[in-house]
This record gives sequence, C-alpha cells and structure tokens, in this order.
Amino acid sequence: MPKKPRKAKPQGKLRIIPLGGLGEIGKNMTVIEYEDDMVVIDCGLGFPEDDMPGIDLVIPDISYLEANREKLRGVVLTHGHEDHIGAIPYLLRTLNPPIYGTPLTLGIIRNKLEEHVLPHKPKLCPVNAGDKVRLGAITAEFIHVNHSIADACAIALHTPLGVLLHTGDFKLDTSPIDGEMMDIVRFGELGREGVLALLCESTNSERPGYTPSEKKVGASLENIFSTHAKKRIIIATFSSNVHRVQQIIDTSARHGRKVAITGRSMLGIVKAATELGYMKIPSGVLVDINEIKKYKPRELTIITTGSQGEPMSALYRMAFSDHAQVSLDAGDLVVLSASAIPGNEKLVGRIINELSKNHVEVLHDAVVEVHVSGHACQEEIKLMLALTKPRYFMPVHGESRHLCACQELAAYMGVDRKRIFISEIGRVLEIDSEGAHWNGTVGAGSVLVDGYGVGDVGSIVLRDRRHLAQDGLIVVVATVDTDARLLLSGPDIVSRGFVYVREAEELMEEVRTVAYDSIMNILEGRGRADRMQIKKSVKDDLTKYLYSKTKKKPMILPVIMNV
Amino acid sequence: MPKKPRKAKPQGKLRIIPLGGLGEIGKNMTVIEYEDDMVVIDCGLGFPEDDMPGIDLVIPDISYLEANREKLRGVVLTHGHEDHIGAIPYLLRTLNPPIYGTPLTLGIIRNKLEEHVLPHKPKLCPVNAGDKVRLGAITAEFIHVNHSIADACAIALHTPLGVLLHTGDFKLDTSPIDGEMMDIVRFGELGREGVLALLCESTNSERPGYTPSEKKVGASLENIFSTHAKKRIIIATFSSNVHRVQQIIDTSARHGRKVAITGRSMLGIVKAATELGYMKIPSGVLVDINEIKKYKPRELTIITTGSQGEPMSALYRMAFSDHAQVSLDAGDLVVLSASAIPGNEKLVGRIINELSKNHVEVLHDAVVEVHVSGHACQEEIKLMLALTKPRYFMPVHGESRHLCACQELAAYMGVDRKRIFISEIGRVLEIDSEGAHWNGTVGAGSVLVDGYGVGDVGSIVLRDRRHLAQDGLIVVVATVDTDARLLLSGPDIVSRGFVYVREAEELMEEVRTVAYDSIMNILEGRGRADRMQIKKSVKDDLTKYLYSKTKKKPMILPVIMNV
Repeated sequence: MPKKPRKAKPQGKLRIIPLGGLGEIGKNMTVIEYEDDMVVIDCGLGFPEDDMPGIDLVIPDISYLEANREKLRGVVLTHGHEDHIGAIPYLLRTLNPPIYGTPLTLGIIRNKLEEHVLPHKPKLCPVNAGDKVRLGAITAEFIHVNHSIADACAIALHTPLGVLLHTGDFKLDTSPIDGEMMDIVRFGELGREGVLALLCESTNSERPGYTPSEKKVGASLENIFSTHAKKRIIIATFSSNVHRVQQIIDTSARHGRKVAITGRSMLGIVKAATELGYMKIPSGVLVDINEIKKYKPRELTIITTGSQGEPMSALYRMAFSDHAQVSLDAGDLVVLSASAIPGNEKLVGRIINELSKNHVEVLHDAVVEVHVSGHACQEEIKLMLALTKPRYFMPVHGESRHLCACQELAAYMGVDRKRIFISEIGRVLEIDSEGAHWNGTVGAGSVLVDGYGVGDVGSIVLRDRRHLAQDGLIVVVATVDTDARLLLSGPDIVSRGFVYVREAEELMEEVRTVAYDSIMNILEGRGRADRMQIKKSVKDDLTKYLYSKTKKKPMILPVIMNV
Repeated sequence: MPKKPRKAKPQGKLRIIPLGGLGEIGKNMTVIEYEDDMVVIDCGLGFPEDDMPGIDLVIPDISYLEANREKLRGVVLTHGHEDHIGAIPYLLRTLNPPIYGTPLTLGIIRNKLEEHVLPHKPKLCPVNAGDKVRLGAITAEFIHVNHSIADACAIALHTPLGVLLHTGDFKLDTSPIDGEMMDIVRFGELGREGVLALLCESTNSERPGYTPSEKKVGASLENIFSTHAKKRIIIATFSSNVHRVQQIIDTSARHGRKVAITGRSMLGIVKAATELGYMKIPSGVLVDINEIKKYKPRELTIITTGSQGEPMSALYRMAFSDHAQVSLDAGDLVVLSASAIPGNEKLVGRIINELSKNHVEVLHDAVVEVHVSGHACQEEIKLMLALTKPRYFMPVHGESRHLCACQELAAYMGVDRKRIFISEIGRVLEIDSEGAHWNGTVGAGSVLVDGYGVGDVGSIVLRDRRHLAQDGLIVVVATVDTDARLLLSGPDIVSRGFVYVREAEELMEEVRTVAYDSIMNILEGRGRADRMQIKKSVKDDLTKYLYSKTKKKPMILPVIMNV
C-alpha cells in the first residue's frame, strides 16, 4: 500500500498556564496559548482562608493577561458558579475580551455586573452546547456535561497541534432533571480522533465509585414530604442549583403545597432561570413570602438561601428569630439540602444547634440523602480517561491531595506517568510536536479584595491584623524634646484588645512605668536620643516586660512626638 | 400477706447542676448536690471558638463551687481526656477537694500539674472500677466502660433519694484491647434496683448503629503494614489513646519493625502508661528518635502527635520539613489514625496537601478504616437506657443538636417525655420524693485563658480584637491647647492592618486632612472644645469618610494631648 503523504508537523507551541484552581479550591482560571492567540478558560473567585481576616474575596492575579492583552482572543466559560465566573467583573476593569458562555451562565454574569461600574460595555456572547467558536488559531467547542448547575459545558480547544480538552466541573448523571445526560458520545469521538491533552477536574478524585444522580434527591424529598405532611417545610439549598430548586417545587406541587422563596440570590436565580426557560414553575404554585400567613403549615414550602450557615442569610435569620416573614417553631421542618463546604462545618452546626434548641426538626445530609455532589468521583474520572485516551494529562481544580489522587487515576488508566503533569499556578507547560515540558513561570497569585479595595491588602497588612487579633495593642504616646533631652508629656498608655483595662489598672500602671523608664534611659543616656531610638527602646522593653508578666505579645505602637 | 413496713420517704432534695458540656463540646463538669453534700463529676476544659482570637483555653466558671466550698466533698473523674480533667489545675488555684480517679487518669493529671504552681498540695485519691467512695450522704461507685482512653468509668452516685448514674464518655466494645468489655452487668443490676436519674453522653447520638470495636483498627493496621512492607510508616494518633498506640507497637513488632516515638505528649503518655502497666512494650522494640538513621525504612515505624494538624506538632513539622530527626519523602507512608475534630478539618487538610505535594503517600479515615470513635452511637445509648431504665433522663456532653437527638432516643426507649430534661449550663434540676422540676439557675459560664491570664479577657476585649482583625486601626495623634483653642502639633496618622501605607500615600494624606478639619471644627467652633469632644469628632468624621471611600471600618483611636 502506498503511504499517505505525510503532513508537515505544525511548528507552533501550545502553552498551558493555570492562573488559579491548582493547589486550592476555587479561583479557577486557565490560560491556553497557541503562538499569538490566547484563550482563557473560566475566571473564578476564591474565598479567604482563616489566616486572612477581614478579606471579602480572593481573585486571580491577571497581570499576565494585562501584559499580553493584544493576544487575548476571548474568555470561554464552563458554567455559572462563582468559582468559575466570579472574577469576571474584576477582569473587566482592565480588559474587555469577548466572553463566551451558555445563556444561564451569561444570565448570572449579567446579574452580577449590575453591581459594578465598568469602563466598557462588556461583550457577552451566548453559545450552546455543540457550538464552536473561532478564536484566532484556536477553535473552542462547547460540550454538554452534567453538574450541580444547569447549562454546564466542557470545552475542547482545537489547536493546530491537536485537541486540548478541559472538563470543567462535571459528573455523569444518567437521569438528570433536564433530561440530557453528559455528551459522552462527543467525548468518545474526540478520543477516537485523538486528544492531545486532557485537563480534568479533581475535586472528588479521592472518592471511590460514582456520584449519585440528582434524581436520588428527588426520591428523598418525596419521602420527606410524605412523612411530614402536617409540617411546614423549609428547604435550604444552593441558589445556583436550578435543578434542585425545580425538584423541590415539583414535589411541593404534587403534595398540594404552595412555594414561597426567600433570600436575595435565590430570588434572583429563580427569576433568571424561569425567564430563560431552565425552570418550569407550575402556575399558581409560587406565592409571595409576605403572603405566607394565609396558608396553613401543611400547605407551604419555603425555599431559602443559607445552606452554608452564612450569617445574615435568610435561613440564619430564621434560626435566630430575625427574619421579617418567617419565624420557626415545633411545627416546622428544616431540610438542609446541601453539604457543608470544608471550613463551613461550624457555621452550619450553629444553625442546626439553634434550631434544635427551639424544637425545630432538622434533616441534613448526614441523616438522610438530601444532597448529591456535582463533581465526578473516581469511576467518572476513569470513564472520562477511557473515552478520551489523552496523550498528556493535567489534573486541575483541587488542592494538592486531589491533584495527586487524580494523577493516580490517570496512571491506573494507562497514561504514562511521564506524560502526566501536576502543575501549579503560574507554571507554564509547553507542548510542541516533539513533546511536552515545563518552561518557566509567569506572574500569578492571589489578589485580595477588601471592601472597595482590590489588592490594597497584602501580606504585611494581614500579618498586622493577625497580630492585633491575637493579643491586641498598646499605644504609648509621649512628647519629648530630643535636643534638650527632656520628656515633656506622657507617656500615656492606650490599649485595645489586650486585657480589660478597668480590672487591670495595676498592670497598666506598671506598663506606664516601664515605658517611662525606657524613654528616660535614652534621654538620660549617652547615646543618640532621636525618635527612632526612643521608639525602639519602648517597643523592646515593653514587649519583654509584658511577655514575662502575661505570656502575651500585644502589638506595641510607640508614638513619640518631638517638639 | 402482711405489708412490709413502709420506709419513710427521704425529705431531702437532689440537685443536678451542669457547669459545662451542655450546648457545647468539651468543658464537661456537673455538680450533684444532696442537701449539704456536693460532688463534682469531671472538670474539663474547652477550646476557643473561631470568634475568640488569641484565646488559648476555655474553662468553666466555678464561682458556684467557690461560694459553696464548705459543701464540696470531692471531685470524681470519669477518665483522663482534657475535656474531662483539663481544668483541674485551675480549680486547684482556689479549691482543694479530694480528687478521685483511676490510676491512669490521676497519672495524666500529675503530669499536667508539674507545669502549674499551686497554693496547696493536691489530694489525688486513686480508685479502681468497682470501688465505692463515701462523700457525705453520697456514695460514688466507679463502673468500668470502654472508651478511646484506658481506665474509663461511669459513675453511679448512691444518694438517699436513689441512684444517679452519669455515663461519662463510653462505648460498648466486645473486643477491647485490654480485654475488658464495659461492665453491662453492673448497669443492669443498678437498673433492676432502680435508677433515679441517668445522665447520658450525647456526642454520637445522631449516628445510627454501634461504634466499631478498637480491634477493627488493628485489622486495618495489619493490612496496611502488609501492603506497605518496603516503606517507613509514620502514624499519627491521639497520644491519650493508649490502646491505639499499643496496637501500632504490636503490629510493628509482628512485622519486625522498631518503633520510635516523637511529640512531647506522646512521649509523656507512653511513659506514664508503661509505668502504670496500661501498655506493654515488647523488649527491644522501642528505639530513640535520634537513632532512626540506623534503620532502613522497612524496619521502622514512627508514632507521632499531630493527628489534628496542630501547627508546631511533630507531624506538622515533619510535613513542612522542620522536624529535627525526621524528613519525609516518597519512601514514607503517613497514616492519620484519627478523625478531624469539627473545626480542625482545614488544619488536617493542610498537612495532607503538603505531604501529597512532596510525594508522600497518606492514608486517612476517609480512605481506610484507621480510626474508630470512642463514643456511643444510637444503639449503644439505647442499650444503656434498656439496662438502666431510668426514671429521669438528662442528655449531657453535646451541642443542642446532640442533646435533642439523645432525648429522642430516650423517648423512643419509653422514657416519659415529661421526665426527660434538656438542661443548660447553670440551670438547676431539683429532684425530691415528689418529682423533678427546674429550680432557677446558678452563676455559670466560660472563663477564657489567655497566656497567664485567667478571666482577664472578656467580651469587650474580644470585640476589640475582632474589630482590629477585620480592618485594622488608625491612630490619630495631636497636641492641642483647649484653653487657647489651638492645635499645637499633629495630627499625625499611624495605621496598622488597614491598607499597605506605602501604596496608599494619597489616602493617608486625605485621612490627615479629614482629621485636621475635624479637630479645627471643634477648636474654632462655638461649642465646648475639650479632649472628649475632639476625640468624638475625629472618630465620627474619619469612620464616615473611610467607609464611604473604602467600605472598610478600621478602629479609629484618637490620642489627643492637651497642654
């Protein structure tokens, strides 16, 4: 048989650069470059760690995008969760690329953007699963997957070197609420044609088996409604879980209940999802939360936010008797149709405790199956690997433990360990026709959002906040004349967050004495006697004295005024 | 048949007063009074909540005991865990009652007391399961139970009104490591004779079934050692879990491994438990941690503290390459033989991530059965109820959710709901021959320990610490002459934990201007111009200005000196 004429190998380089979502949960963002064309997959936000007091949000550092703005062909979005789209408003402050996403994803973004003032009109471009978008030398294809929000997609980037497939968040649900299973045929087709690189989510890569179907929650709800027919039922869930909300509404309607909705984000998403056709509400079922007094407990379901125990959420306010329309008692059943995100366990527990104390029955996922995950477990990740048979593999979306577990799954499925790459934020993986290799790093990291400030709080400010939180502070104020080497007034002592001063007068008097001695030591000594010297002396002496006396290390702030 | 002569009904009152452990996890302490005799069951400490920055420990408020010291006949201890004995050193600062406990319990206390200076020599009185101790009109009987520490007891208080039974922490283990099942016969005997009141632990009352036997962990360990024969094995567990440590040592010996121990508390407990005969170490198995270089990885097991991810624990230091003797790599297996206590999930996760990143294999309880709980699940609580058939029931040791779940178990087992009492800290339940009823409250609560300070940090100090942590502080310093209505120097601005000042010079300059205007407004105005007025004006104006500008609310500390 005559050989086919060999195609010339493409000479370009494909670069994969995660800007977030690796070594952490949230803040998902990946840059893909082929020569002079750059595509960004997702642009999410993260939540502050325990050691970031006062911080509201964390967003990816996008300085690399800003420096290469002329290459940026577009942002493609997998779905509408905050950890995938939440940083879009911040990106739009300095950049204005076209943003591609499915209608629900863009609907949620439009809603968010109303709270931000932007320099340009954003370019939101709706696509549907199956669509392809040309972005320079790269063509992005959107592929339907199942997830805990409707309208989620994986994204295949067709490049001259081959297909790079990013799964986004996904699960396999053979019986999803919207009737469409993940498009495993398309994944299989891509696998047959050849997938150059698979970037696969790792969130549940430590969990064996398959994630249960969303329908399982429906069966639990049916059971709960049947066995609690006399009670008013209050259900908290993630507002973005449109299918869950749909199931709650459907079950309520079947049991002859009206449904009231409370919580700002829940009202917003139900409105958007209904308008876009993602949710179908039987007519006459929805009632205004202000009208609920007209109905008996057995005639009513209330859907609310607050499933993570967020203080000030609607459920939190109900639990602590601070909700304008809903007060709970023994005639109520509260269902937490969600699981606590790691770190939120104590907040959720606080609500369960308060409800228990007030004789309100509570059902949560440790007791009945009222929640299923939206992420692929081990068997689903293996299925994805079996379908796509990638040449290169990079686990994404997860802390180190998840990335490592996902790596093991790929190795188990036969991917050569030399072709598996565990990357990190800012690290560049370069693929060309010869192979794949690390090639340096780009600027990347976390930008902290505190109030209106974006990036104005850094590690020094955080260190000071932690120090202040630990043992409070002592301000020492004195006026000196360094030329005459005289103490003119003070030292005065002001303290906050250290000890309760009224009950520690003696200690505070001693603090004054130590500060006085410290200042006089410098003024009456033979060495230099400038403000810096005095400050340093007061700080050192007081720190030493207080630690020996109290085992605490408050921040010492000497304010020395020179006349 | 002639009637037996009726005994005269006792006229006294039995009072049950929890001072800790209800509505919370930890800090367990219960006062039982019969007329002029008072017995305290346990004296534990709690750990600070997230909203208590800088606090080291929480102990019960014992002012009620101090006010009734002449009635106090003794403290009886169920077992040696911190949440049951940890506040003993603080109680001994002002009181010195005899303290009764089993040898291991007292051994652990003796160890703790070495770090404290006490006004009196403590009276530690050893008892064994089965012993009875006369404490005025009350006789305390110690009854063997299974738990995650050796030598644990329930306590039956025989009073003139009947038997009050406090389970302490317990589980039913038919195959415990020390060979002795919980003494269910004695519980049954008491039930037959009649139990007036049962105080039952509630920690696991939400969990169905039985808690697995400690032996189950042994089987898992055996399996892990067989499948990881070439690796060095590092196992972290609770130091107080003497039986777990024994199993690790035995498994190691069977597999021809030496055992090295690291972590201060682990070394302390192994020493105490060995001396007291609770642990039997095959000769030649233990090696010093400084000698481990002599052995190949396959010849070595290391037992360590740090299973809760505690920063500075031995395991934490190993993970972050900061342990003097142990550095980990791909030749090591780390086993976390413990589950994360609620609130510690993120700390434990941090260690797992760091180990994963460094290619160290990690096994934890989500992956293999390397831990079992020490607390009774629902079936064991029901068993306790079936054995003791109490007239009155009070769930103890748990947050509200656990107490309520335990209440439901008692109701299910046939205890009349009118005879089930969910109490709270400081609330008095009074039982006499007629019945049981609430009778007021006594002083009770939490005392915070911060460094050497016990109780010197209260709600105001904590509020200030939280405020400082949230947005930092701004100190405004100025010298004025209020008589001449002149600003003599300043205002100077010092800020910490607010924004990074070097990058916010403009903002700080504006802050100075606002402060200046605010001071001059008062000085040049017609109203009073004392320091208080100026302080208030500066605080109000700056707070308003900064919130509108930054959406942050730093603490404003005006220091106005008057000459």
